[in-house]
Amino acid sequence: IPVGQRSEPILSNDSLIKRAATLLTDSSSTFLSQTTYALVESLTEYTLAVYTLISLQNKYTSLLDKMNSSEENAIWQVIIGARVKVNQLKEQYLKYESSWQRAVSLSEMAAEAAYQAGADQASVTVRNHIQLAHLQVQEAREQAQKAEVQLTATQAEEIKKTITEDKGNPPSGGSPRNSLSEEEIPEAYLRED
Amino acid sequence: IPVGQRSEPILSNDSLIKRAATLLTDSSSTFLSQTTYALVESLTEYTLAVYTLISLQNKYTSLLDKMNSSEENAIWQVIIGARVKVNQLKEQYLKYESSWQRAVSLSEMAAEAAYQAGADQASVTVRNHIQLAHLQVQEAREQAQKAEVQLTATQAEEIKKTITEDKGNPPSGGSPRNSLSEEEIPEAYLRED
Repeated sequence: IPVGQRSEPILSNDSLIKRAATLLTDSSSTFLSQTTYALVESLTEYTLAVYTLISLQNKYTSLLDKMNSSEENAIWQVIIGARVKVNQLKEQYLKYESSWQRAVSLSEMAAEAAYQAGADQASVTVRNHIQLAHLQVQEAREQAQKAEVQLTATQAEEIKKTITEDKGNPPSGGSPRNSLSEEEIPEAYLRED
Repeated sequence: IPVGQRSEPILSNDSLIKRAATLLTDSSSTFLSQTTYALVESLTEYTLAVYTLISLQNKYTSLLDKMNSSEENAIWQVIIGARVKVNQLKEQYLKYESSWQRAVSLSEMAAEAAYQAGADQASVTVRNHIQLAHLQVQEAREQAQKAEVQLTATQAEEIKKTITEDKGNPPSGGSPRNSLSEEEIPEAYLRED
């Protein structure tokens, strides 16, 4: 190789591209970590809120024939609050889910770019990270789904109990029991953010 | 806000995601810079090699009736070398072009991720960078295309001249003039890398 030729190994385009691709896998991994953490955390918060709602509804159902109208109204307000919370947390995790999806796509592209640039180790590292992130999110999703199934079962039981109850007491129009459906939560609550 | 609550602004998931997205636009930009530089440089090298080939072919055509067989063979070997170089540089710029395309896609996704994370400035910066990279590559591509057009014209003229020439001298089987077509460059040369 003649002296003074442009392609000194350390500064060649290929090695600069390889280095830049490696940096890119690092920052994709960081972005993936942050979005995975946020998604898993928000799914967990959502799951806990669903269990809180379940336990409130169970309490309401069990006390239904022991409460006066004012006590019933008080616990009903708490249930409405818990439902609003569940909806807000669902919106939140859906937002983080789309960030997370973008982070996964970006990391996949960065892994491919690193591989093509000859940064094999960086490529493998980010691919392992993607796999781990999928596992973590999958686990949190399953927990949330389990809670949702239980909530649906509780609500079905509650409705059954309410109907049985209503056979004894004549229906009082506008009573909390009749506003069980989620559609009737005041708009203002749902649009709190 | 109660004391000890998780969401201190500086450590919130949103601000961490925003920061990670900003870092990502930085490394995407670096990757885009490196691949743009490599692509523009390799397009320029290719363009220069095409002009070298043109000038060699012009010389060959102009000297065709003034050379003896051994001189003709010598200049022909140089032309073959120049063609091999052109092909190698074309392969090189095609390789960099695919890296560059990946860098553009990654930067576009990073810009979108930054925008969604609320890092508007980072998003705008990387979008401007993408636009600039497109302009630089476009310019280098146009130069290369201009050279290719000129090469095709030169080769057409050369073939015309060779045919005219051959009317005077009876064709000598296997002579350099008959191996003008690119298909006949020995495989070994083309597969040098």
